[in-house]
Amino acid sequence: MFISFEGIDGSGKSTQARRLVAALQARGTQAVLTREPGGSEGAEEIRRLLVEGRGERWSPETELLLFTAARRDHVERLIRPTLERGAWVVTDRFADSSRVYQGLARAENRQLVEELHSLTIGIEPDRTFLIDIDPEISLVRGQSRGGAEDRFESLGIGFQKRLREGFLTLAREIPERIRVIDGHGTEDEVAIRILAAL
Amino acid sequence: MFISFEGIDGSGKSTQARRLVAALQARGTQAVLTREPGGSEGAEEIRRLLVEGRGERWSPETELLLFTAARRDHVERLIRPTLERGAWVVTDRFADSSRVYQGLARAENRQLVEELHSLTIGIEPDRTFLIDIDPEISLVRGQSRGGAEDRFESLGIGFQKRLREGFLTLAREIPERIRVIDGHGTEDEVAIRILAAL
Repeated sequence: MFISFEGIDGSGKSTQARRLVAALQARGTQAVLTREPGGSEGAEEIRRLLVEGRGERWSPETELLLFTAARRDHVERLIRPTLERGAWVVTDRFADSSRVYQGLARAENRQLVEELHSLTIGIEPDRTFLIDIDPEISLVRGQSRGGAEDRFESLGIGFQKRLREGFLTLAREIPERIRVIDGHGTEDEVAIRILAAL
Repeated sequence: MFISFEGIDGSGKSTQARRLVAALQARGTQAVLTREPGGSEGAEEIRRLLVEGRGERWSPETELLLFTAARRDHVERLIRPTLERGAWVVTDRFADSSRVYQGLARAENRQLVEELHSLTIGIEPDRTFLIDIDPEISLVRGQSRGGAEDRFESLGIGFQKRLREGFLTLAREIPERIRVIDGHGTEDEVAIRILAAL
């Protein structure tokens, strides 16, 4: 199984992805935790170009090409080989993040995201958990992390609200794959909701 | 006018691009010299990922996406603004290098190069000079440069011969844009051939 976690910054998806892998391993299922952008050696190098620096460092189109390059490397070098040896892959973000982030940056790019995806990526997760949370809460969580990787998190509350709407719209468009998980409450409460949905 | 120079490593195209810009400027024409991969601040950062490191660092598809990202940035931030203010742009390599290099790496990628180009780049040079040279000669020139940027130059004489054939085939396909220039002889001799063709 190939599983992705999606959501706005600070939604708790990284924590929940890690907990799901631990729960799977405790049940004897081989599972690999990974993330985007990054997840393979080359993709992590591309990640640095994407998450550091000024907000206007790249145009939405250049940014999308870099995300797609990182994703192609991640799929080739980690995701496909892991799935082929029979293990599960649990990733913190995948192509839905491009659909929402780059689609929001410029509405006509939503189609470009799909075209680049179908030309160079192809694969979709078997199941996606969208951790849904009030941006006022998530922003506090996100900012408390600090560090250099703040190129997206620094975009502010208005952007986070539009991201949340973008993710929820996508979940309505693809209900057979994307499950919306209420991200409020304690880590344990959210983890139980995810296991129940799985 | 937007002019590109193409050719295998060590063909003398960088030297000739620089000389053409100097000749234009001497005649009072505003002209900007640039290069790929690179040519703009962001594209130069992507360049480092492309020209350094091991040959198998990226798959042909990931490599093509990175070249396309760098080219998008180069076009947006340097080529289009320069042309719009009425100056000439002379670039050492452009999209034909992707057509030949990535197309050679995997034949079915030739179509992918065109699809990515039409989705995200669009622009073509008004005139392209293909500096054609015997790879036995160009390899000596290329290797004498040394340095860390040897990821492509280290591919060997057999690869350079296939590249030369790839460029010549492309020139036959697009004769209205691509002019083949004999790259043998002195710098002055080649420069005169280029000015005559222009």
